[in-house]
Amino acid sequence: MKEVAIIGIGMTKWGELWEQSLRDIAVEAALKCLEDAGMDKVDAITVGAMSGGLFNAQEHLGPLVADFLGQKFVPATRVESACASGGLAVKTAYMEVASGLAETALAVGVEKMTDVDGGEATYALATAADQDNEAFHGITFPGLYAMMAHAHMKKYGTTREQLAQVSVKNHYNGSMNPHAQFPFKVSLETVMNSTMVADPLRLLDCSPITDGGAAVLLTTVEAAKKMNRPYAVITGIGHATDTIALAQRGDILKLAVVEEAAHRALKMAGKSIKDVDFAEVHDCFTIAELMVMEAIGVVEVGQSGPAVMDGKTALDGDFPINPSGGLKSKGHPVGATGVAQVVEAVSQLRGESGKRQIKNAKIAMTQNMGGSGASSIVHILEARS
Amino acid sequence: MKEVAIIGIGMTKWGELWEQSLRDIAVEAALKCLEDAGMDKVDAITVGAMSGGLFNAQEHLGPLVADFLGQKFVPATRVESACASGGLAVKTAYMEVASGLAETALAVGVEKMTDVDGGEATYALATAADQDNEAFHGITFPGLYAMMAHAHMKKYGTTREQLAQVSVKNHYNGSMNPHAQFPFKVSLETVMNSTMVADPLRLLDCSPITDGGAAVLLTTVEAAKKMNRPYAVITGIGHATDTIALAQRGDILKLAVVEEAAHRALKMAGKSIKDVDFAEVHDCFTIAELMVMEAIGVVEVGQSGPAVMDGKTALDGDFPINPSGGLKSKGHPVGATGVAQVVEAVSQLRGESGKRQIKNAKIAMTQNMGGSGASSIVHILEARS
Repeated sequence: MKEVAIIGIGMTKWGELWEQSLRDIAVEAALKCLEDAGMDKVDAITVGAMSGGLFNAQEHLGPLVADFLGQKFVPATRVESACASGGLAVKTAYMEVASGLAETALAVGVEKMTDVDGGEATYALATAADQDNEAFHGITFPGLYAMMAHAHMKKYGTTREQLAQVSVKNHYNGSMNPHAQFPFKVSLETVMNSTMVADPLRLLDCSPITDGGAAVLLTTVEAAKKMNRPYAVITGIGHATDTIALAQRGDILKLAVVEEAAHRALKMAGKSIKDVDFAEVHDCFTIAELMVMEAIGVVEVGQSGPAVMDGKTALDGDFPINPSGGLKSKGHPVGATGVAQVVEAVSQLRGESGKRQIKNAKIAMTQNMGGSGASSIVHILEARS
Repeated sequence: MKEVAIIGIGMTKWGELWEQSLRDIAVEAALKCLEDAGMDKVDAITVGAMSGGLFNAQEHLGPLVADFLGQKFVPATRVESACASGGLAVKTAYMEVASGLAETALAVGVEKMTDVDGGEATYALATAADQDNEAFHGITFPGLYAMMAHAHMKKYGTTREQLAQVSVKNHYNGSMNPHAQFPFKVSLETVMNSTMVADPLRLLDCSPITDGGAAVLLTTVEAAKKMNRPYAVITGIGHATDTIALAQRGDILKLAVVEEAAHRALKMAGKSIKDVDFAEVHDCFTIAELMVMEAIGVVEVGQSGPAVMDGKTALDGDFPINPSGGLKSKGHPVGATGVAQVVEAVSQLRGESGKRQIKNAKIAMTQNMGGSGASSIVHILEARS
């Protein structure tokens, strides 16, 4: 399988970006990425966004971004896999280069979620679930993940404190990330006493509503070598889907889609999880990070809670997870998240992550997820210079 | 550049499909395609759909289709480029195979547009235009194309009859297509006396609101050869974007995006338009087919109206256009249209189009378009056996 390099990264500040439109945010992230790569022209663009239609009354995001980025006639493809749309934009950009259709491909992830009120945002997000069999009947994502959390606590003895520790860890990391929406530390007590959202999940167990963009620039390894600076290579891609409705899964405590996607990505890269130095994973809720740890094989099934308490996934632990602050602290503009995971991975692999830099980071995994585990895209990235 | 083969085609009856949900329609088209190919398992799925969110409150269409098609864990990517989403699904499936990520890739196009009332459908479709600078101010697609039609009539002397003849021709072809939504002939008088929509465009100048699905199965040429039956090969792909807002174009009478996409596709295939035997083009409005004829080089600029009257693009003409009946007669479930164009092209290349079969059809062009000419995807397909 062909290797494709990442030679540029960029992202906007994430938060409530009242002064910027959807296109402004996408273009800012893209320009920062092009500036990082020292390029001003690309052969192809992919745009990851979950629902421009419901959030902004704007579909057709490919030409929208190409147009306002000044990339006349450039082929631009919008892809969607709910909250995994960003990961899919990176995969699709990979295919542009690996298929030979493009020499350079820019993957942009974007979502502007604050143009609608809270109820409409929840409605829009629920369209990632099975509308006929889940959303129509009133369940939303906090409810779906709350059911998983309850079941995990009952079966494996996972505790409320262990869930909270995921949030504490990610906020600690995010406090060192200038792009994060909530760049501050929180204590276990603060998380455990925050407003109840869907029992047992409280406000500080949940990723927020966010506006933001992120972008990465891909090209052939041959072209990357000529730039004479450190870059990253995508050595593995795993993309999988599962039943869209949670009730259809054989075991709601196993994120089979993540297990499958991670297995495929590692196999393509010729690696095992033990070779990976750190990961950015999809902590849309604290329980999600615990279940992803088990699915990608960082811990045995049922052991994620104690492992987080022991610091295994802390910045200085055996297997750091979400050095960026994750969805919890950094924010979760759904279409941008998967691209931003790759931005953080490349930043770490290039040794440019400042106070949150992981020592000797050479191999990274990014894991992006759609819905309650209906889709997942995993990338394996390796440092080169 | 790599050649990729099409070894299966399928589509549903198009129309107002009250008995079928979005997923039912997509799955029916996909199953018919798999049956045609004699396969029951694929490595990847792409889904072209413009706005599951606004039409059906359902995003995350990749896993939705994979799930209900029984393709466990298969990577599934939803792509969107407004009314060119279907063409983009075919291109993305091409990239799955050409990049080496998949051996077989199924492209499914689908839209179920009748779940909402007429006003909401118009609202949803208008999100393919520039929301901030066009749609918000009240203009919809009939209005945008009506402006092009007026300008074309004024500059080139194009007549009301010439516009109507496009509809007459396409309905004649569609009357022989059992999948068409409106499989009947219309007269020039009927078109010219139909209800005014946006002057000069009348009801029978406009493609309808449709529910429908279409699917094609792609694989390597090596695998296709082993099947011992006729197949088609994608020898050219052209994908381009232009300004999303019509007002930003240098010349609203030139579909520059189509010219560019067609040029790229022909160049990749090593062909000129003279080598092409027929085309399926994006006649969302009658004026669109005339302008596309000029953009792909079938006629000189300004000569499309007389050429249609002379029968150049009729089924037995020099360069048949829209043997399927086009968007006008066959219908226009926006995400499905680009895939169905490829279904018709392959059917013609295999010599299986019955009463509407074009004699000695060996090389086809399909041209799918988004918005008022903000995106276009063109494929060149060649018969092999």
